[in-house]
Amino acid sequence: MTSSIFPPQGNKSEVETGQVFQPKFDKDGLIAVVVTDHGTGEVLMVGYMNDEALKRTIETGEAWYWSRSRQEYWKKGATSGQVQKVVEIRTDCDQDAIVLKVNVEGNGATCHVGYNSCFFRRVVKSDAGEIILARPDEDRVYDPKEIYGEK
Amino acid sequence: MTSSIFPPQGNKSEVETGQVFQPKFDKDGLIAVVVTDHGTGEVLMVGYMNDEALKRTIETGEAWYWSRSRQEYWKKGATSGQVQKVVEIRTDCDQDAIVLKVNVEGNGATCHVGYNSCFFRRVVKSDAGEIILARPDEDRVYDPKEIYGEK
Repeated sequence: MTSSIFPPQGNKSEVETGQVFQPKFDKDGLIAVVVTDHGTGEVLMVGYMNDEALKRTIETGEAWYWSRSRQEYWKKGATSGQVQKVVEIRTDCDQDAIVLKVNVEGNGATCHVGYNSCFFRRVVKSDAGEIILARPDEDRVYDPKEIYGEK
Repeated sequence: MTSSIFPPQGNKSEVETGQVFQPKFDKDGLIAVVVTDHGTGEVLMVGYMNDEALKRTIETGEAWYWSRSRQEYWKKGATSGQVQKVVEIRTDCDQDAIVLKVNVEGNGATCHVGYNSCFFRRVVKSDAGEIILARPDEDRVYDPKEIYGEK
């Protein structure tokens, strides 16, 4: 999808090894964003940005997303305080994905369930041979019920 | 999207904190997969799996994807030797993204351009204030032209 903010993609060589930032948005106008902790390298979450959210992120140094479920802009941490201060932005060979290295403000957690990372569960085989999710290895950083009440 | 292989998603609490693996595929039947190096934690690439590719990955311990551009199954490394041996699989709170921690076989690179990671370029501001891609900080692991010829 062509963005109204960023230049359209050039030829393969330019996109893959050039110096012009030509992010490719999918047919819904979105690009996948992998967020990692700048200190530990841990993957914290995957979000989606449209061109305006990506522009805001670059300009403000704080991560903005497009919420696919709510169909609205979403500044991470606006209510939770878990603001993502951007340390580094990377893109991949075909410029259709973004890596954001961030420092997280507030209580330092990223996941609304209370864990440091949204990827707090491993996919494992049970003793019975079934594919299940293991109980988290780590403790939660906070209990969302204590802050937001029962939901 | 409902998968024919994995169970449909249950209620919010079950999806977010339960032990049943209920991956959510998007309207094209795909789920985003973040691949990291098990040793260094570096993000190597972002790919997409449909339910069958995810099943093959879990069963074989080697990463399979669905190529959106070629609309076909793609076993990473089938031609390049850069096979991804899966060490750990994680999913996030809403089970609509996957993290694969892998060891890469062959020459150890992941990117077809020759770098260790597909995310070899940083998005930076030029001296003139323009948003550009920095020249890679790292050397390429191999020169694809030497293996595959000019393309």
